[in-house]
Amino acid sequence: MSGPINIGLLGLGTVGSGVVRLLQQNGAAISQKLGRPLKISRILVRDRHRTRQVEVSPDLLTTDPETILADPDIPIIVEVMGGTGAAREYILKAISQGKSVVTANKDLLALYGKELFDAAEASGVDLFFEASVGGGIPIIHPLKECLAGNRIRQVMGIVNGTTNYILTKMSREGRDFAEVLREAQSLGYAEADPAADIEGDDAARKMAILASIAFGTRITYPDVYREGISNLTAQDISYAADLGYAVKLLGIAREDEEGIEVRVHPALVPLNHPLAAVSDVFNAIFVEGDAVGETMFYGRGAGSMPTASAVVGDIMEAARNIKHKTRGRISCTCFYDKPLKPMGAIITKYYLRLVVVDRPGVLASIAGVFGEREVSLASVIQERMLGELAELVLITHRVREQNMQDALGVLAGLPVVKEIACVVRVEGGEGG
Amino acid sequence: MSGPINIGLLGLGTVGSGVVRLLQQNGAAISQKLGRPLKISRILVRDRHRTRQVEVSPDLLTTDPETILADPDIPIIVEVMGGTGAAREYILKAISQGKSVVTANKDLLALYGKELFDAAEASGVDLFFEASVGGGIPIIHPLKECLAGNRIRQVMGIVNGTTNYILTKMSREGRDFAEVLREAQSLGYAEADPAADIEGDDAARKMAILASIAFGTRITYPDVYREGISNLTAQDISYAADLGYAVKLLGIAREDEEGIEVRVHPALVPLNHPLAAVSDVFNAIFVEGDAVGETMFYGRGAGSMPTASAVVGDIMEAARNIKHKTRGRISCTCFYDKPLKPMGAIITKYYLRLVVVDRPGVLASIAGVFGEREVSLASVIQERMLGELAELVLITHRVREQNMQDALGVLAGLPVVKEIACVVRVEGGEGG
Repeated sequence: MSGPINIGLLGLGTVGSGVVRLLQQNGAAISQKLGRPLKISRILVRDRHRTRQVEVSPDLLTTDPETILADPDIPIIVEVMGGTGAAREYILKAISQGKSVVTANKDLLALYGKELFDAAEASGVDLFFEASVGGGIPIIHPLKECLAGNRIRQVMGIVNGTTNYILTKMSREGRDFAEVLREAQSLGYAEADPAADIEGDDAARKMAILASIAFGTRITYPDVYREGISNLTAQDISYAADLGYAVKLLGIAREDEEGIEVRVHPALVPLNHPLAAVSDVFNAIFVEGDAVGETMFYGRGAGSMPTASAVVGDIMEAARNIKHKTRGRISCTCFYDKPLKPMGAIITKYYLRLVVVDRPGVLASIAGVFGEREVSLASVIQERMLGELAELVLITHRVREQNMQDALGVLAGLPVVKEIACVVRVEGGEGG
Repeated sequence: MSGPINIGLLGLGTVGSGVVRLLQQNGAAISQKLGRPLKISRILVRDRHRTRQVEVSPDLLTTDPETILADPDIPIIVEVMGGTGAAREYILKAISQGKSVVTANKDLLALYGKELFDAAEASGVDLFFEASVGGGIPIIHPLKECLAGNRIRQVMGIVNGTTNYILTKMSREGRDFAEVLREAQSLGYAEADPAADIEGDDAARKMAILASIAFGTRITYPDVYREGISNLTAQDISYAADLGYAVKLLGIAREDEEGIEVRVHPALVPLNHPLAAVSDVFNAIFVEGDAVGETMFYGRGAGSMPTASAVVGDIMEAARNIKHKTRGRISCTCFYDKPLKPMGAIITKYYLRLVVVDRPGVLASIAGVFGEREVSLASVIQERMLGELAELVLITHRVREQNMQDALGVLAGLPVVKEIACVVRVEGGEGG
């Protein structure tokens, strides 16, 4: 066995500490698999004197990135500091110095993926990012390699653990969003500023990464349509359950003859769909290919050790390529520039809850508005009376989003419609 | 782009036809990803004149293996003929000629894995086998690579679609085994001779392969304990459901301080476990690692195109390694020789159904027999009266298998116990 392969770690927060711990814990077996040991030779931190979550020699810590980026004895950089400022600069610098890079940074990849992959290709180094989507779940390598013979039809993912935890709680306990969010924050499952999770931004970044791989076309974060979960009520989740659906924050990436659609929003998912049973903080990515059919990858989408599992798997792959002098074996696969569909062009079903005046002829006039815009109704249920008003719950057949939005605009102006209380797309059923 | 990489296909049955079709269908995209086209240049068949499931030029077909194995222009062999006779001979010959090999042959790997991997390592070629377990589901590469930083605690799999289809039908429709098996045979979901599926042999071969990778120790087919599903009744499946469990044919591979256990048998799985929802012909492999925690891989475990998806993924990886002159990057990882636990040493819970004389004191004497052998009962339910007899359904706490078998031996001799009607292990809950 030859000498160790040195690793420069950028960041020693939750994920960085997990990486250090995992290499300590399983170092012997990892060395045996690789034929060479891995050694963390330097760690970039903001403050050398802070208390750490993991035991690490103070000599390894540095506040000067140059001592890592300019060190010719460090062939692999692991970026787990996050953000799109310094992280981007350091990664580009490392690549230009001929270092392979492993990163967990979805924000960076979803915005500057092309720049980073182009740089890696030009320098002939590896840029691996398994940890950027789904935490420890193997999804990036399987999609890029094992499933590479398929034409991917769609990727549907529950890729944000915080929102899945909140929706699971709302569903099981019949509690409302704000209350469950506060509890999640007190338990550390949601950030003090929860916007990135609950507004779907985090999921949108992950879907941009998955869609780029699935369809061979660069999709960036701003390309992804997104809606969050803060308008969902326990009432709607309960009605959905009665109708045979779970409510999930879904990321959906799909390709058809018209182009690619990538979107993140709450969705009703049939209870017999494999994604419906994915609960609590778990993540799952459902992939449909023309050969493999339906497949799903499930596990913990975040956390120190699960994310470290993905990072260490990538470090081992980068080390293997260094050992065998074959870096850059698999580079960016965005060969195409397929068109992105405008949101109005997507086709889906809808769940709607309307509050209307309870009077003969009301349903007929609502159905008329839908009919004129080719929105056909699959089921209509009058759920309960609210004094002189009635709550109508509708599920439509598959319809073009623009037609539905037009219909909703007209409905909002009808005197008999008091409130369009909830509009949620229905996904994962027949034909979609 | 340089010239094509030639492939020699051994076998043109269900899987072979799928491989040909998939390379026809997605050949352009596959070439683009690899930077070189793949070309099937010769196909070994038994009969050149048989009607084929796929359109293929008759010039490609040969009945002479030498025209493939001895052709220096064919660097990749794909073995999809099955069996452990000629397939073994051809693979060894191909390896000795410096060809990389892709195979879907679980029977061969579960018996002769060591011989084949040693040969591949000696020749510096690749031997890939993603399709041997779980059809199109990416599991071999993820386990060997993405999860390589983990110490794997256990692998639990539903890895046989035929039995899962039968158990799903029995559960949903309350029908008995023999009747559902006949229906599965008429639909083509079960073979005319169903023994390999229903007795657990097929699952045992797949678990031998998974366990070898998970624990770095060569496990062969005869090492795997197995019990089939033919003794299960609709009644027991219904009782299990009442108690909150699904009944599945599970493959279980686990490591603890005492060693490795690998077994295939029916098991009660809690309904909230991700494996419980895996229905019909679908397969799923649940993997637990010390870093990643719980993860699961789900999809179609058989069929022409799903299996071809895995084979083509492997062909692409083999082609990439040829292009980059880096074959044999990842070879066998069985570095250890960990002890295999005898079946009597495993620890699990049990579901039991006994038919007993309905008389005061009977339960006490049964409980006494268990108590003497340290089998403690978690719940006892009297299900129904059968004339002067009563049906007792018991679930135990975790207990050593040998103690349970001893207790069952004594119970069988008690005059008040008329029948030990069903004994099924309970898996996937707390502490196991």
